[in-house]
Parts: sequence; structure tokens; C-alpha cells
Amino acid sequence: MARTVADMGEIELVTAIMEVLADAPDGSSVRVGPGNDAAVLSCAGDVVLTTDSQHETVHFETRWMDARQLGLRAIAINASDLGAMGARPTGFLVALALPKATEVDWVLGLAEGLRDGARRYDGSIIGGDVAAVEGAISINVTAAGERAPGLRAGRDGARSGDELWVTGWLGRAAAGRQLLQSVSVELGDDALACVRAFVDPAPPVRFGVELVEAELVAAMMDISDGLAIDLHRLCRASGVGARLEATRLFDDPTLAAAAQRHGLDRRDCVLGGGEDYELLCAVRADAAGDFQRAAKRHDVAARSIGEVVAPGEGITLLEDGGAESLESSGWDHFS
Amino acid sequence: MARTVADMGEIELVTAIMEVLADAPDGSSVRVGPGNDAAVLSCAGDVVLTTDSQHETVHFETRWMDARQLGLRAIAINASDLGAMGARPTGFLVALALPKATEVDWVLGLAEGLRDGARRYDGSIIGGDVAAVEGAISINVTAAGERAPGLRAGRDGARSGDELWVTGWLGRAAAGRQLLQSVSVELGDDALACVRAFVDPAPPVRFGVELVEAELVAAMMDISDGLAIDLHRLCRASGVGARLEATRLFDDPTLAAAAQRHGLDRRDCVLGGGEDYELLCAVRADAAGDFQRAAKRHDVAARSIGEVVAPGEGITLLEDGGAESLESSGWDHFS
Repeated sequence: MARTVADMGEIELVTAIMEVLADAPDGSSVRVGPGNDAAVLSCAGDVVLTTDSQHETVHFETRWMDARQLGLRAIAINASDLGAMGARPTGFLVALALPKATEVDWVLGLAEGLRDGARRYDGSIIGGDVAAVEGAISINVTAAGERAPGLRAGRDGARSGDELWVTGWLGRAAAGRQLLQSVSVELGDDALACVRAFVDPAPPVRFGVELVEAELVAAMMDISDGLAIDLHRLCRASGVGARLEATRLFDDPTLAAAAQRHGLDRRDCVLGGGEDYELLCAVRADAAGDFQRAAKRHDVAARSIGEVVAPGEGITLLEDGGAESLESSGWDHFS
Repeated sequence: MARTVADMGEIELVTAIMEVLADAPDGSSVRVGPGNDAAVLSCAGDVVLTTDSQHETVHFETRWMDARQLGLRAIAINASDLGAMGARPTGFLVALALPKATEVDWVLGLAEGLRDGARRYDGSIIGGDVAAVEGAISINVTAAGERAPGLRAGRDGARSGDELWVTGWLGRAAAGRQLLQSVSVELGDDALACVRAFVDPAPPVRFGVELVEAELVAAMMDISDGLAIDLHRLCRASGVGARLEATRLFDDPTLAAAAQRHGLDRRDCVLGGGEDYELLCAVRADAAGDFQRAAKRHDVAARSIGEVVAPGEGITLLEDGGAESLESSGWDHFS
């Protein structure tokens, strides 16, 4: 029988997790890491903080990915929010809730993923908390980043005439999630690319940082609940409307092929799917060239999907010569 | 029927919670609060970060206290860690996991408690995350604080000859927890004082900050898992032993009366109970006078409980003329 966290006990488990977590990299801002009452970061600017929890059965199933991948993913989701605010990740805190029957090896695999995920974004794990619970696994991550003082980022700077850009291939993650939920479907390459987009999101964090530092975006946010709902949020914060072009949104051949083969609603994946962890940007027309060059330097697939319009025009989708109102649909955890 | 979070939906619930949360106080370091991808704090020193989760059935039952009290408590527990590191609280992030049947009014009461708890320590709620789950409620709080650069705090500075001090009345919270767990016991005033110590902990955060800023402690930590286990941690980090005096540890008449009346193990409450959220301090003998005066100014009940000794002497408890080894016992979530 594999050893469980209940067999091991809290203190020994925490010690084993700490052994997996590496020290902060040289030159990092971590002054005090795990193992004290709190972590200490030296600070050369503003501090940017975000938190997100991943709950088993709500956000993931353990059969969908191994523990290391789950750790990488939990970090990426939080790093995405930092990038959208133009902040360089520095440290991550992790609070784990583990059923007593959870296998120790699984937890140590998770710790490896958390460690490697933090490294991927030039940060480290600086603290955390472990509790044994009845029920399901949950992984809460709080990410801290730093940003030069005086920089601005957020959702409220868009104005009529700005171009709307997104990074990455929206909807693939949502399609991947649906494919993982289906019982034993044989997946082709296109479907596997969608599954990978869900399992291993790659938020363009460094690109987001450059966009804020070089003042190339008027407004920016990460797309986590689906483009439609997140665009509504950006428009509300900025007091503007938006017009999207369907031809630019639904042109991903990979998603199209996977959707057709497996009977998925491609449109719903793109607009309402969620978990893309890509960026939605409002870019002044005269900054669009620099924006595109920055995307190229960062090897980020950025695409123009429409434009910002006056608030009275609402939020619409242009398709087949007509315009329809875009509903604020997205993932509601509670529905 | 009371309205549940599933009736309301995620977006409306988050909006309602945001209405309860107050703006950050004037002059605070909060530059961007809730409602963006991440919060932003301006930073005038080091940033201190800690996280702690409270899980229903593991850490609390909803019948033990109302929602507002639970929110106050979740903040206090995290503020305690900041105080032990000498950091002034600035902002708190809260990640909630709520069963779909949770009543909206309960959640808004929780939000009030979180808001008022943050205010109590001169901070505010700066962000969060809400998810609907199967199973039990959990409340994760991450606390951020600031500390002047160059200050030191932690567990590793104690040396032989230091005096050991604690704040507050250890063991009352553990006794209170046991009393809450018993089925309908009629409680006298002493027992009620213990219940209050559990329900409404009052960590001496400002006192902790002054101790670090005035360099009055050689080592410090908060007592959250029980004195015995936490003292072992401090001694291990500092490479020292310790000698405690039983007469100074077990002299709380309130705990004594409650323990006697309700058949509780007073000794176990004090040494292994946990959830005290008080401070354990190693104080150089020549700083003890200033330490006591600071405690008096902050209206903190601080008591000397023993001294730091050479590592070879181990960790012992002097009682009735004899010395016994003090086991590293405490609350193990996984046992």
C-alpha cells in the first residue's frame, strides 16, 4: 500500500515538502523563505498580489493530469494575473487541503510542479500551509510580484478607437477540458493540442510585463472566465463598447478540427469557455505596430479581434454581414 | 427559504461581497484594491507574507460562531503571523470555497467580519477568489504586511541565558475548543472566557511590531500549534535548549476553574492545545525591563515562563523539584 499523508503525519510531510522546494534563486528578492511565521521579500517598487484556488472536481480531476502538472498549472494560473498587471513574479505561497488518504508521493510530485512552475516565471515558493480535510483536494496559490512604482495597468484605460488584441488560441483550453471529461474518447492531434492547452497553460507573463513597462496597452486583463464575460468586464471598467469580428475569432484550424470531430461547440469554447489564461488588450492605434513587434520578440501569437467603440454601441459580434449583441456568458461556478 | 449562493450566481455574489468590503483607509498603501486581476500595494520597506486556511469540520463548525466572527477570526490568525515577524498588516486576500447551499446572508456576514478584522489591524481586504464546491466551507486568507528594511525577526536568534516570555493566557483557546465540541454543556464564566479565547483570538500584533522595531527580542514566533511544539521549533532554529517552570505555566485561575469543572486536561491545553495566537519570545536578560515596559504600554499580559539553555540540556519542564523532558506534542492535522 502506498504511504498516505495520514500515515506520515503533518510535521514529517511538511519537512518532506520543504526538501522538494528549492531555495530561491540567487539575486531574487526573497529575504526569508518557507519555515518561518511569514516570508519576507525585499521590495523595489510596488507589490502586486493575487490569489486563486483550484478545487478537485470543480476545477480538475486527478485523472486528468499528474500531480507535477497540476502544480505547474496552479502556478501558471496565478502568474497569468501578475502578467496582466505588468508585474514580475517573485514569490508564491501555497495552501494545500489534502484528504487523509492522499498518497505522499502524489503530494511530493505536486510540490515538484509548484517549485518548477515558480522557477518558470523566475520566482520561488516562499511559504504555505497544509491541512488534512475530509473530501476533496484543494490547492490555493497566492502570487506576489513586483512592478516599478508609477506604472499603471488595469481594465479601465480603453477608449473608443483602440484596437482589441488577444494572445494565444482562445477556446482550446475549454475544448480540452470537455475532451478530458468525456469517457474514453480516442483523440487525434488537434484534440490533443486542445487538451494540452487546458493542462499546461502558458500565460504570456513576460510579454505582459513588457507591455506595461513600455506603456503599449491602454487596458489589459487576463482571459480566465471566457472572452465574452471578460470583455464585458473590461468595457464596464473603461466605460466603452466593443465590436468583435467573428472571422478573426473563429479561425483556429486546430480548434475547428477538434470541435468538428468530437462534436464540440467551437463558438461556445471561444466566447464562453474560460481558462485560456491569455491576455485581452486594448491598444491605441498608434501603438499597434510596437505592440506587434513586442509580441514577435516574445514569440507570442497575438491577434487583433476587433475594436473599442463608444459605450452606446454596446458589445457586438460582427458575423456574416450582420451584428449581434454579445452576451456576457462565461463560466459561473455557482450555476 | 433563505437564498443560497447557487440561487444568486457567482457574479452577483462577488458584487454583493464587494459592496460589503470597504475601501482601504486613507493613507494606506493600497494602490489597487479588489476588482482587478491583482491588487497593488505601494511598498516602503520589506513585504511580509503569510497564508492560512480554515476548513469547516477541521478547524471550525459553523454552529460554534456566527459568520462575522468567523471572518474576524480568519483575519486575526493571519495577522498573528505578521505581528510575530514584526510586520504591520497592510492588505488581506481571501479565497473562499462555498458549498452551493451556503446562504447568501451567511457569506455577507463573513465578508463583514473579514472587513472589520482587516480594519482592526489597520489593513483592508485587497482581493480574493470565490468557488462553489461540494463538501465543506473553507476560508483561505493571505496577509501582507510591511516592515522597515534591515529589521530582523524570526526563530533563530535565541541563545543560552535569554529569558523566555509568552503573551496572553495559553491553553484557554484549546479548552474553549473542547467545550464547544461537547454536546450542550452548561458553561460558567470561566468556561465562557475560554470559549471566547478560541472564538475571538486577539494576537498582540502591534506589540510584535514594536518588539522588532525596537529590537527587544532575540527570537520570536507566534504560538499556533501549541507551546511545546512551537518551543521545539524555536529551539531547533536557534540551536538551543530551554527550561520551563511549571509554576509559571499552569497558574491561570480561569483555565484551572474551567478545566476542573468540565474535566479538561489543563496541562495538555497549555502545552499541546494550539490556536493560542500569542507570542513566544526569547529576550536577552538586559532587555527584559524594556520588554516588560513595552508590554505594559500595549496592555499585553506578558509572562516569563523559563529560560534558554545550552542545546545539550534539551527542552525540559521543571515541576515539583524535578525536571522532565518536554515532548514535542501539538496539534497534528493528519493524525
